[in-house]
Amino acid sequence: MRRITLLTDFGTADGYLASMKGVMAGIIPGVHLDDVAHDLDQGDVESAARAVGRYWNRWPRGTVHLVVVDPGVGTRRRGLAVEAEGRFLVGPDNGVFTEVLDGGGPWRAVELATGEGAILSPPASRTFHGRDLFAPAAVFLARGGHLSRLGPSLAEPVRLHREAPTLGQEMAEGQVMSADRFGNLITNLPGELLEGVPQVEVEGTPVPVGQTYADVEPGRTLALANSDGLLEVAARDDSAARVLGAGPGTVVRVRVGDGLSPPRASGGPLPTDGPGRGNAAPA
Amino acid sequence: MRRITLLTDFGTADGYLASMKGVMAGIIPGVHLDDVAHDLDQGDVESAARAVGRYWNRWPRGTVHLVVVDPGVGTRRRGLAVEAEGRFLVGPDNGVFTEVLDGGGPWRAVELATGEGAILSPPASRTFHGRDLFAPAAVFLARGGHLSRLGPSLAEPVRLHREAPTLGQEMAEGQVMSADRFGNLITNLPGELLEGVPQVEVEGTPVPVGQTYADVEPGRTLALANSDGLLEVAARDDSAARVLGAGPGTVVRVRVGDGLSPPRASGGPLPTDGPGRGNAAPA
Amino acid sequence: MRRITLLTDFGTADGYLASMKGVMAGIIPGVHLDDVAHDLDQGDVESAARAVGRYWNRWPRGTVHLVVVDPGVGTRRRGLAVEAEGRFLVGPDNGVFTEVLDGGGPWRAVELATGEGAILSPPASRTFHGRDLFAPAAVFLARGGHLSRLGPSLAEPVRLHREAPTLGQEMAEGQVMSADRFGNLITNLPGELLEGVPQVEVEGTPVPVGQTYADVEPGRTLALANSDGLLEVAARDDSAARVLGAGPGTVVRVRVGDGLSPPRASGGPLPTDGPGRGNAAPA
Repeated sequence: MRRITLLTDFGTADGYLASMKGVMAGIIPGVHLDDVAHDLDQGDVESAARAVGRYWNRWPRGTVHLVVVDPGVGTRRRGLAVEAEGRFLVGPDNGVFTEVLDGGGPWRAVELATGEGAILSPPASRTFHGRDLFAPAAVFLARGGHLSRLGPSLAEPVRLHREAPTLGQEMAEGQVMSADRFGNLITNLPGELLEGVPQVEVEGTPVPVGQTYADVEPGRTLALANSDGLLEVAARDDSAARVLGAGPGTVVRVRVGDGLSPPRASGGPLPTDGPGRGNAAPA
Repeated sequence: MRRITLLTDFGTADGYLASMKGVMAGIIPGVHLDDVAHDLDQGDVESAARAVGRYWNRWPRGTVHLVVVDPGVGTRRRGLAVEAEGRFLVGPDNGVFTEVLDGGGPWRAVELATGEGAILSPPASRTFHGRDLFAPAAVFLARGGHLSRLGPSLAEPVRLHREAPTLGQEMAEGQVMSADRFGNLITNLPGELLEGVPQVEVEGTPVPVGQTYADVEPGRTLALANSDGLLEVAARDDSAARVLGAGPGTVVRVRVGDGLSPPRASGGPLPTDGPGRGNAAPA
Repeated sequence: MRRITLLTDFGTADGYLASMKGVMAGIIPGVHLDDVAHDLDQGDVESAARAVGRYWNRWPRGTVHLVVVDPGVGTRRRGLAVEAEGRFLVGPDNGVFTEVLDGGGPWRAVELATGEGAILSPPASRTFHGRDLFAPAAVFLARGGHLSRLGPSLAEPVRLHREAPTLGQEMAEGQVMSADRFGNLITNLPGELLEGVPQVEVEGTPVPVGQTYADVEPGRTLALANSDGLLEVAARDDSAARVLGAGPGTVVRVRVGDGLSPPRASGGPLPTDGPGRGNAAPA
C-alpha cells in the first residue's frame, strides 16, 4: 500500500520519467506510482512549489512526494528530504517545498548524504539525480526508513520569497501569487475576508464577490473563497488573467465593510439580482 | 483490487488533480487510480461523454469511473451516480454519461445527497466538487457501498442530444459525431452497413470503403467499420477532418448495394487494385 | 505485483487508451498499469524506439512493456513479443524495439499467432490491435505465461537503421541520433570518450566539455557524458538543438587527446575558469 507521487518537468515522451519509475518499482514491487504532473515548464521551481502546496497534505500519512524540478542538477545544490504531518517530500533543495515549510506546522528536514557511511550511494550520473538520488531516497522512506538516516539535519532549507499581505482594520491588500490553467488568479489573501463584502479591487478595477463561478454571467469576473481557502479572482467560462490583464504581482484590495458604490463586473453591467451575492461566506 | 478511473478537464500542472487523488488514496490505501485523461478543453462535456462511451464498459465489473468536467460546479446542477452493467460512474449531472444512458442496457441512477442523514458530507468548497463531493462518492462505491445509499433515484438524468441516423432500404444517412486526435471522423452509422458497399459519400464526396487505414495510399481517405463498430472516415497517415474539411454535423450517406460509378479517393486517382476493397466486412 | 508499462501515440482525450487499460485490468484485477507516455507524434516509431531504449531495462524482471505506435495496424505487419534480460516487450514488429534487439544482450522473439490452436484470439477489429491483440498478449506474459506459447520464433524482427560511429585512434566521429524535450542532442558516441578531452566539434563548431548542465553559463553549450552513458550536447537552461541549429544527423567529432586551440562556447567567450572542466570524467 506504499504510494509515491511524482511531479517533474521531464515531459513523458523521452522515457526519462519511465526510467525513474522503473527504479522505484524495482525496489518496491507493489508500489503505487501516482503521477501528479510532468508538463511543468523546464526548471519552473515556482510553479512546482505552488502545486505541491495544493496537494501534499491531502494524501494519507506515509505518502512520499517526489518532486524533481532541478535546474541545478549536478551542482553543489543540496538534496532534501522533509517530513511534515506524517508525509514525506524528496527533491532538490531549491524551494520546491516552500509551501510545506511555510505552512505553519512542524517539519523536519535533512540533507541527502551519499557515499561512505551513508544509506544512499553517490549518484551514477551528474545529470539525472531524479533517477539516481531522489528516487532511491523516496523508496527508502516509502519502505518505512527513518528520515534521519538519510543525512544530517538541515535547519534552513531554501525557501522562495513569499510576499505577505497587509491585513488592516479597514483595508486588506495582497497580490496575485499565481494563475492556474483556467486563468484563475490565486492571491495571498485569506478567503474569509470576503464575508459580507460586496466587491474587491483588482489593480483598481472593482470585481464583485460571489461563491462559485456560475454566480456571474459568462465572461464576467468575480472574487471568491477558493477550495484552498484563498481569495481567488475568476471569470466564468473564461480566463480572469486574460480578461483583467492580470497575473502574479497584481495588487488586490478588499475594503472590509465596504458598502459604497455598487460593484461593477468587468465586461458589462452587473446583474441586479445574481445568485450568491450578499452572502459570500464559503459553504 | 479496487480501481477508480479519472477523466477531468483539470490539466495536471496546478495540482488540483493530485489533491483529488490524495483524498481517494487516503480512504482506500491500496486503490488503483487509473488516469484516463486530464487534457480535455475546459468544460467540454461533449468530448467527455464521447470518451466515456468508448471505455466505460471495457473495464471490469466493480470499476468506478470518476468524470469531473463540471462547468456548473457550485450551482444547483445535481451530482450523479450511475450503475450500469456492474460498473459505476460518478460525476456532475450534465450529460457526461449520455452514451451510458443511451446505450440500450439497463441502468440505475441516483442524485448525490449531502447533509443531514446522508452518507456524503456537504462539500467543503463550492468550486471543487471533484475533490469534495465526487471523489468521496466514488470511494464509497469502490469500497462496495450500495448506489441507493448515495441519494434518491433519478429517473431522468441529463442527456446530450444525439442525432439518430436514417436507415432506409436503399440509403442510410447519418452524420459525423466527433473527430478524434488523429482527425478520424466518427459517425452515428453502424459499421456493418459497409458490408459489400464500395464507397460512401461524405458531404457529396465519394470515399472508398476499406478495412484498415493502410488499405489506401498515404493521404487518401477511406471509410471503415471502426473498433467500436461504427462507420468511421479516416485518412491514412493524415487527418480526414483536414483532408475533407469535415467535422461534427457533416452528412455521410451510404447507398446500400451501391455499385454504380467507381469510387474515387480524395486527393488523387484510386489505386486500381488496392488491398481490402471489394470485401469490406470488418474482421 | 504484476506491472505493465504503456507507451502509445494515442493521446488520452479520446478514451482509446482507457479502453485498452480496461481490457488489461479486466483480466488481472490488481495489475499496475504504469503510463510511460501517450503524446508521441502519430506513427513516430523512431521516437518510440529511442524512449524504450532508455527505460526498458530499468524496470524489474517480469515487467511487461507494451508499446503501441502502429501506423501499419491491420496490415500484414507482424505482432511481436520479445523477452530480454527477464523483461518482456509487446508491440508491432516495426522497429519499436530496435534498441533492445541491438543492445548486445541475448533476446528471444516470437511472432504473435492468432486463431486456431493459438493462445490469442483473432483481433476483433482491424484498426485497434493495441486493445484487441497486444493488450491480451501483454496480459498473458504478465500472468507468467511463456513467451513461446504466443507464437513461432522470429529470428529477424524489424530493426531501424542505426548509424555506427567511427572510433579511430586520434579521432572519433559520430552523429546526433535524437533531440529530447529539452533540446539536448543525444549522439551515438560513448560518453567515456570525453575523459581528458577539453572540447568536441559539432558540425565544426567547438563545444567545451563539462560534467553537468550548470558547468557553463546560461545559454552556453557543453558536451557531457549523459545519464545513459552517451555523449550528449546540451545548453544550460536552453535548447542546444536551437542554439546550434542541430538535430538528428548532425556530425559530432572528438579529437582524442585534443589540446590545441582553447575551446570556445557558442554564444560568447568561454569562462576562463569554469567549474567541471579539465576533469571531465563522468562521476
